[in-house]
Amino acid sequence: MPDRDLPTILVNITQELDALPIEQRGPVADYIPALARVSPEHFGLAVVLADGSVHVAGDANVPFSIQSVSKVFMLTMALQKHGDDVWKRVGREPSGSAFNSIVQLETEHGIPRNPFINAGAIVVSDMVLNGGDPRSAIGDVLRFVRDLAGDETISIDNEVANSEAVTGFRNTALANYMKSFGNMGREVEGALKLYFHQCALSLTCRQLALAGRYLMLDGQHPTSGKAIVDVAVARRINALMLLCGHYDGSGEFAYRVGIPGKSGVGGGILAIVPGKASIAVWSPGLNARGNSLLGTKALEMLAEETGWSVFMPGAGL
Amino acid sequence: MPDRDLPTILVNITQELDALPIEQRGPVADYIPALARVSPEHFGLAVVLADGSVHVAGDANVPFSIQSVSKVFMLTMALQKHGDDVWKRVGREPSGSAFNSIVQLETEHGIPRNPFINAGAIVVSDMVLNGGDPRSAIGDVLRFVRDLAGDETISIDNEVANSEAVTGFRNTALANYMKSFGNMGREVEGALKLYFHQCALSLTCRQLALAGRYLMLDGQHPTSGKAIVDVAVARRINALMLLCGHYDGSGEFAYRVGIPGKSGVGGGILAIVPGKASIAVWSPGLNARGNSLLGTKALEMLAEETGWSVFMPGAGL
Amino acid sequence: MPDRDLPTILVNITQELDALPIEQRGPVADYIPALARVSPEHFGLAVVLADGSVHVAGDANVPFSIQSVSKVFMLTMALQKHGDDVWKRVGREPSGSAFNSIVQLETEHGIPRNPFINAGAIVVSDMVLNGGDPRSAIGDVLRFVRDLAGDETISIDNEVANSEAVTGFRNTALANYMKSFGNMGREVEGALKLYFHQCALSLTCRQLALAGRYLMLDGQHPTSGKAIVDVAVARRINALMLLCGHYDGSGEFAYRVGIPGKSGVGGGILAIVPGKASIAVWSPGLNARGNSLLGTKALEMLAEETGWSVFMPGAGL
Amino acid sequence: MPDRDLPTILVNITQELDALPIEQRGPVADYIPALARVSPEHFGLAVVLADGSVHVAGDANVPFSIQSVSKVFMLTMALQKHGDDVWKRVGREPSGSAFNSIVQLETEHGIPRNPFINAGAIVVSDMVLNGGDPRSAIGDVLRFVRDLAGDETISIDNEVANSEAVTGFRNTALANYMKSFGNMGREVEGALKLYFHQCALSLTCRQLALAGRYLMLDGQHPTSGKAIVDVAVARRINALMLLCGHYDGSGEFAYRVGIPGKSGVGGGILAIVPGKASIAVWSPGLNARGNSLLGTKALEMLAEETGWSVFMPGAGL
Repeated sequence: MPDRDLPTILVNITQELDALPIEQRGPVADYIPALARVSPEHFGLAVVLADGSVHVAGDANVPFSIQSVSKVFMLTMALQKHGDDVWKRVGREPSGSAFNSIVQLETEHGIPRNPFINAGAIVVSDMVLNGGDPRSAIGDVLRFVRDLAGDETISIDNEVANSEAVTGFRNTALANYMKSFGNMGREVEGALKLYFHQCALSLTCRQLALAGRYLMLDGQHPTSGKAIVDVAVARRINALMLLCGHYDGSGEFAYRVGIPGKSGVGGGILAIVPGKASIAVWSPGLNARGNSLLGTKALEMLAEETGWSVFMPGAGL
Repeated sequence: MPDRDLPTILVNITQELDALPIEQRGPVADYIPALARVSPEHFGLAVVLADGSVHVAGDANVPFSIQSVSKVFMLTMALQKHGDDVWKRVGREPSGSAFNSIVQLETEHGIPRNPFINAGAIVVSDMVLNGGDPRSAIGDVLRFVRDLAGDETISIDNEVANSEAVTGFRNTALANYMKSFGNMGREVEGALKLYFHQCALSLTCRQLALAGRYLMLDGQHPTSGKAIVDVAVARRINALMLLCGHYDGSGEFAYRVGIPGKSGVGGGILAIVPGKASIAVWSPGLNARGNSLLGTKALEMLAEETGWSVFMPGAGL
Repeated sequence: MPDRDLPTILVNITQELDALPIEQRGPVADYIPALARVSPEHFGLAVVLADGSVHVAGDANVPFSIQSVSKVFMLTMALQKHGDDVWKRVGREPSGSAFNSIVQLETEHGIPRNPFINAGAIVVSDMVLNGGDPRSAIGDVLRFVRDLAGDETISIDNEVANSEAVTGFRNTALANYMKSFGNMGREVEGALKLYFHQCALSLTCRQLALAGRYLMLDGQHPTSGKAIVDVAVARRINALMLLCGHYDGSGEFAYRVGIPGKSGVGGGILAIVPGKASIAVWSPGLNARGNSLLGTKALEMLAEETGWSVFMPGAGL
Repeated sequence: MPDRDLPTILVNITQELDALPIEQRGPVADYIPALARVSPEHFGLAVVLADGSVHVAGDANVPFSIQSVSKVFMLTMALQKHGDDVWKRVGREPSGSAFNSIVQLETEHGIPRNPFINAGAIVVSDMVLNGGDPRSAIGDVLRFVRDLAGDETISIDNEVANSEAVTGFRNTALANYMKSFGNMGREVEGALKLYFHQCALSLTCRQLALAGRYLMLDGQHPTSGKAIVDVAVARRINALMLLCGHYDGSGEFAYRVGIPGKSGVGGGILAIVPGKASIAVWSPGLNARGNSLLGTKALEMLAEETGWSVFMPGAGL
């Protein structure tokens, strides 16, 4: 793809998808009021290339609740803090079941399948919390994401965080269940508080694509050049995103789009083309698997137009 | 990686792994006599590069039973014959369970999760059979693999095929179970016969790496240049291998090795670096997930030495 | 209950239920043609008391396919032949799942939960077959049921038996699956043939109630007085019927009716009041659990009118 | 059985079982300290006959934690308060899985299988609590059990109750999980507090057998003669005990013993012979299913010696 065409590609995708009637955009998440009242008509797209250039289209500057996309940043923090010990408490296999399933935990003795299903992310939160104060850990997370994006205005939506806490009985169940197997710290409340707040991180597509640059850059901080994580670790986070980033629709996404991505129930997706691009897309309507319907379509179109795919010849050496 | 070092890398890997005592090589599959009597001391490795050069080490010219690696070639044939209709009868998601699990079939009404678990491969065999004569279909499969490898000496081990048929009660159960949901053709016996024979394909590492070239080359036949399958289809087969190629150890393999691969219970693995390499490795001892123990290690070492990974920056554009 | 009222009670129940429109009678089993064409308008009821008197109402002399009710007679034969060794190959616990579920077999290594789900009954057939000739074993079963009922006209409906064999892919799957765990004899075909034929036993309500007398009489043959099975074994068969006789509706039946019973998908139920009555009821329409809708209602009404319940004070000493 | 022999039978059973070495008594529950330190050498037995006579042997006057046996009394209270509405929130089928399994809740949308597994008992506690004050409800439960037993000295062991609360993460998980399906009241804490306290009821065998009299007497209060519950309800509670009273060992218990019973992890079992006897047995060592090892044996011996069985001819009319 000639890079100069990217803006045209983004505009074309946005126009085509924006023309879709509301019935073809999927239902928005409605389990908390703050998500339920978001209009399904939003569509935003942002691409940051390896040269640092930023390309946006649609509602790329409207903040939204990134929800489970935050699990990527939390996993990164846990790996910074605990290294490979992370994998003693959470697995690396696709789950083959829904994002909030509790069944697998019973047969596998409280060890969640991977860090991108809810149970796994709660364990990761517990590792980031590390026995400390939840308020302080929430501050750490916010600073980490702001630093990745280079944007001090990123914030947490407290209404969303509080709604999650009030209605999150299934997540509370998951945490207590893992605790019964000895796979949670002393107090599950702190880890859950952190978990509910990370889900409430509010970013625009532009901010999210900027925050994802280190995964495009083999783990390097985009401006300082320091290692956020090692090269090997960055590639492995991308591998996990490809295999487990869309819950029980991960195979479909890998098959159709072919690049690592992580979705959230707020309708956002962060997708990484190693060495090429960090992409954020947002449309609140969801498909049957709980992933953004138009967001997935947009990434499929973008991959087709650009040829971006981790399975494209040309990597390496 | 400077290409000229590849032979040295292969020799080093082979020497290091060949030095391992038998206790560290894993048990060989023992469910049929012909597999049980294979020595765990074998280790072979073959790499075909995009320039056509072939590099081998160890027992790369000893034939072995490729078993489930054949599922890649069968899927390719089914996609040639039926296109996207294949996906009406088999899914594209990681299974999250063992290679021969029947549980998922019950909850998902006879549609196997993906073409690389046994149930999925039996459905794929039924599609390749397409209501025809099993003996004739077995001939087609043999001709297809010989053509891919450019080697007319490749054969099927009839002792293995017959042993599979005699002891394959679980596969017979899977086939009849899917039939009860209407997801098998008129006679399950024919599809099972084809399935048992494809598993009994006997190739050397050299032959297997040669047979895998079309997946390195975006679907092109390595000598004629004709499309075995479309570019998009080839990439998608690679995506499926990455997500589902090692049963319940697929996440682990993607995490550690980072390239698409398909393992077989005979101890073989075919791995593809798009645009770069088609790799075959063989060591009969298995890990707890039923994948070659030393084979997996060898690929991990090779990936680390060469930098080969689909998550390595450098793909595309 | 004064015994002289029983005929009146039976007539009242029959009249009340016969008045129900077809929409309230449940759908008939339709997986084989011979069952699908039975009219849902049939309703028959027969009660044999301990004094040998026989009381009937409705279509009590119309033969029907007893299907899974035959599992009671087969279990009795297996216990005669193998004693407690039966329980090495099949459990005694309620299954908590549907009659033809294969899931439990995977987690419990090929040992079916109880002899009244399909998998369990196939193992029991294998034990009755005992490595012998299926045709001869089918003759033994027929003679056994004829002798219990004292009626040489009882027969097997070969059309039903053959239909079962042709469409019974799930049962073939169950048999092969158990075989893969070593829990079936040399040839699964023979056991399946016996199983399909036992299901095709054709009895009237009168004949079925007569055949069940030994379970009312603590194991004694109703005319010769010889022990069909020991006292303890007879009580235990009744216990199994109470706990597992209605698949995933066994708890509901025990709760509402309170007497041991075994249902079949042909719409028949055999129910036993120890020391008091052997009851057969038939109405082909089924409820959501696969048990006769009106048959269950009839037994609930009968139990209420007569006070028959194993939980009624008055047993023992 | 001539009633005058009962004392001899009880003494014989007690002597035979008391002679067993500690290795044959099963491990005691060790998940909370107060249970872990109970000696496995205890064995007590009490039988109250319909004539009001009380017969005891062994440690029949030593109080123990009745744990899940309390679920019978709680179900009775819930049925008094809510009648058949109880069954809108909890099922009546055997569970086919362990006492604290969460798997079934996921597939059946938060409705526990029956009131005698933990999840079901927590819902029942929520119904007894009925939105009220936990301390007051705990008082009601204590008064109810004292009144049934006619013994004002019965108490709750607060050390046990508090230990349960501290270590009961799995029960907290179950409660929150059901809450996520809308099957718990406003605050799960209150229902859990009540649940943990009911489990900590401390009774002797004598007191427990006395408390169970109403189930022997078709629901009548043993002294006042008033209906605790209707005749039909009492019989149905007994039916539920027979089908579900021993978790995943209920079938085995019904098969071997043949009378309704409810076990607790403290090693107690309450067993009811309708119209004949209310029996309590206690021995802290457990079998693999979590039921008292010697307690089950004692009841099997007692049933054999007395002929007590709900499947014994002689019931009804």
